[in-house]
Amino acid sequence: MTSDPLIARLRSSLGEKAVVTDPDVLDSHRNDHATFCSAGVPRLLVRPSSTSEVQEVLRAAGEHGVPVVTQGARTGLSGAANALDGCLLLSTARLNQILEISVEDQVAVVQPGVVNSELSRAVLDQGLFYPPDPSSWEMSTIGGNIATNAGGLCCVKYGVTGDFVRGLEVVLASGEVVRTGRRTVKGVAGYDLTRLIVGSEGTLGVVTEATLALRPEPEAALTAAATFMSIEDGIAAAAAVMASGLRPSLLEFLDGPTARAIQDYRDMGLPADVGSLLIAQSDRGPRAAEDVAAIAAICESFGAVEVAVASGAEESRMLLEARRLVNPALEPLGVTLVDDVAVPRSKLVALLDGIAAIGTKYDVLICCPGHVGDGNMHPTVVFDRDDAAAEARALEAFGAVMELGLSLGGTITGEHGIGTLKAQWLEQELGPVGLGLQRKIKEVFDPGHLLNPGKVLRPFRA
Amino acid sequence: MTSDPLIARLRSSLGEKAVVTDPDVLDSHRNDHATFCSAGVPRLLVRPSSTSEVQEVLRAAGEHGVPVVTQGARTGLSGAANALDGCLLLSTARLNQILEISVEDQVAVVQPGVVNSELSRAVLDQGLFYPPDPSSWEMSTIGGNIATNAGGLCCVKYGVTGDFVRGLEVVLASGEVVRTGRRTVKGVAGYDLTRLIVGSEGTLGVVTEATLALRPEPEAALTAAATFMSIEDGIAAAAAVMASGLRPSLLEFLDGPTARAIQDYRDMGLPADVGSLLIAQSDRGPRAAEDVAAIAAICESFGAVEVAVASGAEESRMLLEARRLVNPALEPLGVTLVDDVAVPRSKLVALLDGIAAIGTKYDVLICCPGHVGDGNMHPTVVFDRDDAAAEARALEAFGAVMELGLSLGGTITGEHGIGTLKAQWLEQELGPVGLGLQRKIKEVFDPGHLLNPGKVLRPFRA
Repeated sequence: MTSDPLIARLRSSLGEKAVVTDPDVLDSHRNDHATFCSAGVPRLLVRPSSTSEVQEVLRAAGEHGVPVVTQGARTGLSGAANALDGCLLLSTARLNQILEISVEDQVAVVQPGVVNSELSRAVLDQGLFYPPDPSSWEMSTIGGNIATNAGGLCCVKYGVTGDFVRGLEVVLASGEVVRTGRRTVKGVAGYDLTRLIVGSEGTLGVVTEATLALRPEPEAALTAAATFMSIEDGIAAAAAVMASGLRPSLLEFLDGPTARAIQDYRDMGLPADVGSLLIAQSDRGPRAAEDVAAIAAICESFGAVEVAVASGAEESRMLLEARRLVNPALEPLGVTLVDDVAVPRSKLVALLDGIAAIGTKYDVLICCPGHVGDGNMHPTVVFDRDDAAAEARALEAFGAVMELGLSLGGTITGEHGIGTLKAQWLEQELGPVGLGLQRKIKEVFDPGHLLNPGKVLRPFRA
Repeated sequence: MTSDPLIARLRSSLGEKAVVTDPDVLDSHRNDHATFCSAGVPRLLVRPSSTSEVQEVLRAAGEHGVPVVTQGARTGLSGAANALDGCLLLSTARLNQILEISVEDQVAVVQPGVVNSELSRAVLDQGLFYPPDPSSWEMSTIGGNIATNAGGLCCVKYGVTGDFVRGLEVVLASGEVVRTGRRTVKGVAGYDLTRLIVGSEGTLGVVTEATLALRPEPEAALTAAATFMSIEDGIAAAAAVMASGLRPSLLEFLDGPTARAIQDYRDMGLPADVGSLLIAQSDRGPRAAEDVAAIAAICESFGAVEVAVASGAEESRMLLEARRLVNPALEPLGVTLVDDVAVPRSKLVALLDGIAAIGTKYDVLICCPGHVGDGNMHPTVVFDRDDAAAEARALEAFGAVMELGLSLGGTITGEHGIGTLKAQWLEQELGPVGLGLQRKIKEVFDPGHLLNPGKVLRPFRA
């Protein structure tokens, strides 16, 4: 029994098990994977299992004036899924059905709690391909991927999550349901509300169903890897690959500090003075060997020290291993604060030079892996968890990297989103007129400021 | 000299030549290419040549309470660029500069009045490719393409205009300037205002600059064409091509009535009893021959009567000729009312069967060419221009086709937009909740209802 009328109402309408108030469970749901984002103490956790239950949750929360934070797998990196004091946590865990996979229409219809890898494997079983592959894909949900417009390794060829979202079912703050977009490939019927919801991090509505575009299964992939003496050479080679028309299905960059951390973690035969490392893949089956050979030749022409080209799947896997080891290799070095700036490719050398200078200025280690084909880098500030002064310097360096990215015509976030982590810098990126429009759009969808308030946009209501 | 204070103000600030009041010129600017859309009598035509001049035009119009209709080349097919009584026509004709083509970043920055073909050729000169290719590409402007999220033949592989718009500069109804989006490949900084403007048909703001994504130049293309005894066979073959992973760069369909009209217009050797015709292209250079051979084999396996595969550019051009002749062949038959429904590919046979039944019911000729790979068809009602009863039946048939498309899970417009032509059906497609959101978004951008009022959304202010 509870004296909390909101809890009582939801238990009555959704059932006892759908409404959780156990403090340990609530505590375990306070945070996503962001570092340094504050998290409040939630009032309750609700696990609706249908669209109509989500409607009831939002109606009840609205009537009680309780803010709602929607959570998927809480793998986000910007604090968007962090609890707010007194909030209702709306978990999509039970909205986890793949409702349809249509081979003929090349679409899947899913609920938001479906895990990315589960969908990817289910469609592959039918000869189809759902490309968006954030690093978290074994854990993160489609709803979370939509909320942040998640990217991944294969974006360089296939695009981001939003490029695969055709239509959505969304429960609004009012409890009403709206269907946006379409099932068809093309459509221009009215303003594009689908794209407005994609990347909105739970601040405009709760996605309860998504119609996703699929592609035919890609052909077999092959990998090439190259080491360079300098950052400049590696970046120049990457630019030449992108200009070549080869369309790699993956093009990753690791700077010297990242490569050294990996080599220290596990012997990959990387020389101590490596300046940068490029890893590329082509998934064009019989033509992949020709593609990776062409990529290798480009790398050599830009002064690569060593170039390795895989001849099969196992060698390809091994060449990708360095990229996979970035997180495990950095983790033992201290706390990691992962940035997500993207710049025009022509500014990548300036970005990396500037990041090195920032590392020196603030006396912190900044490793810089990234999706170089998209100009989207993940400068990662690493510092000692027991050194408060280092922590303060790390935060300053983190901000300086975003300022640098903006000064180079870039954006503060390529694929991780704003959450609370970057809400301050978002205002700088948008400028006052753009910020004003964004606030008004927020108020169209959520006049009561109850959907993930303070995320993306800092609190602004008078 | 004029006694009209708005005209006097704009002549003073923009110069005499930028403000046109000649009734003949105004009359020639009343319509776009839509059939059956009403057009009002404009008060003046203004040709600003800079963003700041557009700001001045919108401020002046706002202060005088005069509605603004933005016009590019007026090649639209839904009446979005049609004049309203007493309106200010804002022509983008003098905003026609390609500001930048960056080979390194694979972007172009252009003003809205640049003609699509001019941009396409300019980037090709630098080894780059701007894919969106609406049929009007030799005349239509990038601003107009953005306003309608224009498609074209190559969408089936490359996507629509919106997929290539990275960022925009937009003058708002208030006269303020906002920059949306970014120059980078990826970005998720705040709500996606860029995609909200794309397809908004001049109702949310005036685009004064666009940053467009480019790709490396495609390789040489080859074409295949196949005739079938029935609609079902042609549609089934198209579905199989799309399921095959072949990624044709063009996949067009002509139904029997269209093919017969073309054959009557020019002898293409098409049999009188042809059920449907498919035309496909691959632009993968050395691999194109293999691709079109595979497409031809698929067509044969679905019962194609005749299959032709080009071995070079000239033969490819000849095989595409039938598609190019659709408009010239239909034009002599009467007035054409071109629809733009899109359905999931699995519903194409049902759509075409339904269209044939509608033609019979309303006693009108409906020809149905279309972008079959995208499920986006252009059912075209043809009727005698001197027969008022036939005109009435044609309009009823036109509406029935949209109703049919919606009933099959489709959309009323794949690439032509809403304008005034389809504003009534848009309400049906959106439903009341979606319509309510769209109206509120309109009011965020244009609280005075002065930007192309009544287009896309029917007048709704109390």
